[in-house]
Amino acid sequence: MTIRKEEDARGSIALMQRRVFFISDSTGITAETLGNALLAQFDGVDFEKVTLPFVSDQGLAEAAVRAINADAANGVRPVVFSTITNVDLYAIISRSDALVLDLFTAFLPRLEEEFQQGSTHATGRYHGLVNRDNYEGRIEAIDFALTHDDGASVKQYHLADIILVGVSRAGKTPTSIYLAMQFGIRAANYPLTSDDLDHGRLPDFLEPFVPRLYGLTIDPQRLRQIRQNRRPDSRYASLTQCRKEVSEVAAMFRDRGVPYLDTTNASVEEIASRVLQDTGLRRRSF
Amino acid sequence: MTIRKEEDARGSIALMQRRVFFISDSTGITAETLGNALLAQFDGVDFEKVTLPFVSDQGLAEAAVRAINADAANGVRPVVFSTITNVDLYAIISRSDALVLDLFTAFLPRLEEEFQQGSTHATGRYHGLVNRDNYEGRIEAIDFALTHDDGASVKQYHLADIILVGVSRAGKTPTSIYLAMQFGIRAANYPLTSDDLDHGRLPDFLEPFVPRLYGLTIDPQRLRQIRQNRRPDSRYASLTQCRKEVSEVAAMFRDRGVPYLDTTNASVEEIASRVLQDTGLRRRSF
Repeated sequence: MTIRKEEDARGSIALMQRRVFFISDSTGITAETLGNALLAQFDGVDFEKVTLPFVSDQGLAEAAVRAINADAANGVRPVVFSTITNVDLYAIISRSDALVLDLFTAFLPRLEEEFQQGSTHATGRYHGLVNRDNYEGRIEAIDFALTHDDGASVKQYHLADIILVGVSRAGKTPTSIYLAMQFGIRAANYPLTSDDLDHGRLPDFLEPFVPRLYGLTIDPQRLRQIRQNRRPDSRYASLTQCRKEVSEVAAMFRDRGVPYLDTTNASVEEIASRVLQDTGLRRRSF
Repeated sequence: MTIRKEEDARGSIALMQRRVFFISDSTGITAETLGNALLAQFDGVDFEKVTLPFVSDQGLAEAAVRAINADAANGVRPVVFSTITNVDLYAIISRSDALVLDLFTAFLPRLEEEFQQGSTHATGRYHGLVNRDNYEGRIEAIDFALTHDDGASVKQYHLADIILVGVSRAGKTPTSIYLAMQFGIRAANYPLTSDDLDHGRLPDFLEPFVPRLYGLTIDPQRLRQIRQNRRPDSRYASLTQCRKEVSEVAAMFRDRGVPYLDTTNASVEEIASRVLQDTGLRRRSF
């Protein structure tokens, strides 16, 4: 984040900073997501972020207001992103000396009108343990991703929703874990090694699972950088080796009709979303 | 989600369903988070959820509108949660036959006024690869969590931000991974086994790291259920064994002043948020 310098009232140079509070009666993760998505739209401010989770009674709400007001007293009005479900607690927070932006106040009335019913105003409904089956599906998916990471086990591929394949360090592991954690999807991943590539075709045991394969590729120069950090000046990290592996793997994907994606400039979130979009795979936890 | 049954116009029983679209010019993850947090406040509706990510040009926006309108033509107005940053694309979406709730329209004008500057309306600012250092810190934290999962390696504990300890199946692994994925925190985890517990004290190599330890406990009955699913009718899964381990570990936490949390009724998100709150650990990626 770049920092905008401005002359303050005394004529000296001061940093343009803004304190931001994320306040919730649950984890605060929704408030952080909402707030960070909005703040990412402003380049010229240096945000100091504080999360106050589990603000679930009057005493805690009043303590939060004291923290906000103490910051406001320093001169610049803080910004509060709130996901407080309890209306009485929200009323306390809304009276603080801040710009208070609340998810529920902004949108619930229109949804209540649309659905012709009141909302529950219940706490922890989204990131809490409300639906245990759904939650346990996610935990099992994480177990699955770890057990089937990096080709560690290939015995249960018939239970995989998807099997990510590609050269070493193309982004398979974090993507598998993200698919499990965020969407409850059982993702295995298998690294295509020099041995596999020398044969010029997929390992035999992968053949029955071709419809579940999804390939990740990467620019050879970028792959070289990543590998160089791991094993400096190794053959593994050489540009020649990276180029060879990437081109052989891409040829194999095309040959076997495996869909694939270039991960060079993509975050884990972007890769995971593209994978779901390309495969039409349904989120199990949502 | 419970399903409300209602008589439709023809007098037969129909499910009260509502189609929901999450639309974004980036991953759609923020739109899903925002929308799901709101929808979780309504018990009486069965939501059919569809995500349309990467809606980044006019053609894709018009295709999204056709999908929405086709659904609207079936009789019940769909709900759209949008995080479209581009104003022209949002204008197209906003004219669909749906209740359209947009994050940016709702909050950006007030933030622009507050910060006295326009927002960038740039796509993919939050879940994209905008800040590579920050992003790579998260990927390294995931690597760290995997390398240091379940006591697999204990050599780099001096690089850990936190070391989760507790009996087997108390929630350490998914919490470590969540802390890494969501917050960029380097979390190791070490299972306290019967061997460790028989000695009645922490393993020697953990002693220098006591200030970084955080304990996870669990109700013995719940632990028994979880272990029973893994290794049915084993000594490991017996209630006697679960009770013994849980009580010995809790005594050790108290003895060595290790803060700890009961995970029995907590989700990974709740555990991770509590851990951050209790330890004051700063998010590295935020």
